[in-house]
Amino acid sequence: MKNELRIFCPATIANISCGFDVLGVALDSVGDEMVIRKISKKGVFITTLEGQELPMETDKNVAGVAGMAFLAASDYKGGFEIEIYKKIKAGSGIGSSAASSTGAVWAMNELLDRPFTTLQLVEFAMEGEKLASGVAHADNVAPALFGGFTLVRSYEPLDIIPINTPSELVATVIHPQIEIKTSDSRKILKTNITLKDGIKQWGNLGGLVAGLFTEDYDLIGRSLEDHIVEPIRSILIPGFKEVKAGALGAGALGCGISGSGPSIFAFSKGKDTAEKVAQAMKEVYQKIGIAHDVHISKINNVGIRILK
Amino acid sequence: MKNELRIFCPATIANISCGFDVLGVALDSVGDEMVIRKISKKGVFITTLEGQELPMETDKNVAGVAGMAFLAASDYKGGFEIEIYKKIKAGSGIGSSAASSTGAVWAMNELLDRPFTTLQLVEFAMEGEKLASGVAHADNVAPALFGGFTLVRSYEPLDIIPINTPSELVATVIHPQIEIKTSDSRKILKTNITLKDGIKQWGNLGGLVAGLFTEDYDLIGRSLEDHIVEPIRSILIPGFKEVKAGALGAGALGCGISGSGPSIFAFSKGKDTAEKVAQAMKEVYQKIGIAHDVHISKINNVGIRILK
Repeated sequence: MKNELRIFCPATIANISCGFDVLGVALDSVGDEMVIRKISKKGVFITTLEGQELPMETDKNVAGVAGMAFLAASDYKGGFEIEIYKKIKAGSGIGSSAASSTGAVWAMNELLDRPFTTLQLVEFAMEGEKLASGVAHADNVAPALFGGFTLVRSYEPLDIIPINTPSELVATVIHPQIEIKTSDSRKILKTNITLKDGIKQWGNLGGLVAGLFTEDYDLIGRSLEDHIVEPIRSILIPGFKEVKAGALGAGALGCGISGSGPSIFAFSKGKDTAEKVAQAMKEVYQKIGIAHDVHISKINNVGIRILK
Repeated sequence: MKNELRIFCPATIANISCGFDVLGVALDSVGDEMVIRKISKKGVFITTLEGQELPMETDKNVAGVAGMAFLAASDYKGGFEIEIYKKIKAGSGIGSSAASSTGAVWAMNELLDRPFTTLQLVEFAMEGEKLASGVAHADNVAPALFGGFTLVRSYEPLDIIPINTPSELVATVIHPQIEIKTSDSRKILKTNITLKDGIKQWGNLGGLVAGLFTEDYDLIGRSLEDHIVEPIRSILIPGFKEVKAGALGAGALGCGISGSGPSIFAFSKGKDTAEKVAQAMKEVYQKIGIAHDVHISKINNVGIRILK
């Protein structure tokens, strides 16, 4: 049995247009690194945190909180040290907190020879999400742990459904470097929606899930519509309309807000298109002078993985 | 080329709990018969209508109206006679009007060697639905024409997505003989829903579509939840709660209102369970003294079919 693991913790796109609060997908080439180490002393200790300015106290760090939830449910008598090497920017909308909280509990579970199911790990990681945003949501942690596309069908009881990933699907994500807090981004949403918009949304969600299973790229594109959240949240993202128009013009299947923003994602069929889409998205922010990062990534079908 | 066709027009279940206004499914052993005949005189003429008291004037009969929409779009110079042998009771909530309107246009299309696509036929048949209920909905006509489960992803443009049908799925439908008009049943719905209920609904719809594709009967059952329409419409159906409890108690995967009611459907894995479910549903209406019909049917994967 190994005593420590170095792992890759993927960035994730949540919501995915019509899948508000239920859908998420894991990325392949964007993510953090973590090292988790078994120690004899009871407790969870963040010993290294590089790349982002985040608290290292166990009860203020999402990996720490998720790890403590794991430990509380486990009969393991020792503890864990955690090293976090952040590559995902906090607050970018691609699951920075989920990467840390899932990485911690996934590696702990591996080091103890898997006492918990993946679904139980989702529950522990959700404690980290609760610290980060005030809501214990699962739409980022589920894909990080299961890989691919996941659907949170229900919270009570927690029911996570893995969805098929079409092999040629490539994501482009642009992160304009402005700050939007997840909690603020939630506050501007309305409590009520029209039944008419609801019907459109579940029609599209059904279409998207069908398109993912049948690998029908055109259907995936048609279904990437959001009449409920995008019209409100996109107001907080400068240049959103132009970026989306640019992405679609360059051949993207669809484009929307990643998580609660400000990152914007697009899906394309094939890497060549995804690169053209990235170029079109970048040009908008170059023109209006907003600093930005762009990621192009295949879909990650395995979730967190061990690094050599 | 044949001059007339005798066809079977299936009953259909629309809405299907979490799929309000978007999902539908065709039944195999419940439906009407129709004969459609080419004639040289321009126009659509209902020459026989047996089994139900319904208007025979072309512009007041759903098959007539749908047929006229077909004819208006066609360059065919002649006309059609229609004989309708209703087995589905009007107003029962299992797509009586959709069976007639789809049967008419499907057979006309066959007799003219398929000038129109199935999607175009849906549009013609929707004119019949508009006459029947005031709304040109597609959730019954789509499964009658495509067979199996169908999703109406969008109305503008009309986008119908065929969904896989698990091979062992069997429907039980009970029709308590009380009258609820589709138009009344629409009026009692609220214009707004909470975002929270919306999220539950599209989570369940995604789960149901995933369960149908992966043939995961347990997931299908868990997803057959409706927090939006069923709590309101079920008030109009005496004994609904007891029927649902009886169906689930007898082993049904899920149970809900068929279309806008008053029929109640249940899905089961296998015919044996579907029969036990039928028995449990029947007992409720026997006890409270409401006349009722019960149907047990496999899912119909082809839609309308030619009878010898």
